[in-house]
Amino acid sequence: MTVKVPVIRNVLEANERLAEENRRAFAEAGLLVINLMSGPGAGKTSLLERTIDALRQEISIGVIEGDIQSSYDAERISQRGVQVVQLNTGGACHLDSNMVKSCLDALNLDKLDLLVVENVGNLVCPAEFNMGEDMKAMILSVPEGDDKPLKYPLMFQESRVLLINKIDLLPYVDCDVEKIKKRALQLNGKMEIFEISCRTGEGLDGWLDWLRQQVKNRKAEGDGAET
Amino acid sequence: MTVKVPVIRNVLEANERLAEENRRAFAEAGLLVINLMSGPGAGKTSLLERTIDALRQEISIGVIEGDIQSSYDAERISQRGVQVVQLNTGGACHLDSNMVKSCLDALNLDKLDLLVVENVGNLVCPAEFNMGEDMKAMILSVPEGDDKPLKYPLMFQESRVLLINKIDLLPYVDCDVEKIKKRALQLNGKMEIFEISCRTGEGLDGWLDWLRQQVKNRKAEGDGAET
Repeated sequence: MTVKVPVIRNVLEANERLAEENRRAFAEAGLLVINLMSGPGAGKTSLLERTIDALRQEISIGVIEGDIQSSYDAERISQRGVQVVQLNTGGACHLDSNMVKSCLDALNLDKLDLLVVENVGNLVCPAEFNMGEDMKAMILSVPEGDDKPLKYPLMFQESRVLLINKIDLLPYVDCDVEKIKKRALQLNGKMEIFEISCRTGEGLDGWLDWLRQQVKNRKAEGDGAET
Repeated sequence: MTVKVPVIRNVLEANERLAEENRRAFAEAGLLVINLMSGPGAGKTSLLERTIDALRQEISIGVIEGDIQSSYDAERISQRGVQVVQLNTGGACHLDSNMVKSCLDALNLDKLDLLVVENVGNLVCPAEFNMGEDMKAMILSVPEGDDKPLKYPLMFQESRVLLINKIDLLPYVDCDVEKIKKRALQLNGKMEIFEISCRTGEGLDGWLDWLRQQVKNRKAEGDGAET
């Protein structure tokens, strides 16, 4: 077991080199790339469905669906008529740069404004592996409880934005949203936070406006770089 | 990245050897050991609280609380007046035999009838690592959705018992308990399944009766081995 640390370090270094390659491919194509993370069943695919339905007339969206196995989520997303690739990890509990790289040939990146990579449902390891994305986004659903920032701090530290989902369930669960926000901001003072319900649609406008602006900013950066 | 498979195999083999040592220590003490697993916030600690409150007059219970960091859950459990050890993994997304072994000196095993090891909240990796337990138990909460057996099959295959928790939320979420049960039993036909709510107490009697019986069976085995 003493070999554990150097092996992990080598894996992370190899991952970082491939992340840089992905980053260059994304920059050339001028699109915004988001690594979407959460525990199992917090609502990543539901958020994608809501986001695609609201924005696909104005923003060209692609999706990489990460799962250990099954193509259940990719089938849900493909019904929305956007580019989608299913990525099965075959047991691994997170996506890495190499896995994402293997999907890029199946996507027409030049046609996309936004690529969302839906990670494996896991609040731990996905936060350790960059894949060349512009930002990480995370979802915490209120039935999971307000103690999660205390117990899974790295994901909160790494994420640019936190979506607190399933707020329609607040009357029925023991969860204090103010505690989640306070604890998340203690870990990461720059975090954007949105309270939403993918089921009822409540609060989604704030997220959609913010996302529109991020895509616009990314485009402006790309145009600036070309001149 | 080509070294990945043999390294993982070595880690699993080393883990299995230490699991065997733990198994011998548990057998000598004649107690039942349960590895309790679920995604984040599905209700592992709440189930422990309910179980301890119901059974501590008749069964001597000890707990190892696995978390990446924080001692929040161990503090919750220690208020119940049972033996509890906090085990922090410092980043690792699952417990292993070596971590559990390191806790055993802090517990008086001979005084216990039942030891529950609460794993890190994660539906993936904990299922791969034995720690010398008699059985694995898992919780799936209904807000996580009925597709989880399709997406995280190994944990369902490895678990002796499935607790479907938070059934008080069924009127408010899109989740079909019959689908969970059908899909879980397709993966593991021998699984015991209980539908419960740790919040309201609904359905807990069935689980408690079953657990009492498991502790009794384990004791009978131990007495049989001594004669």
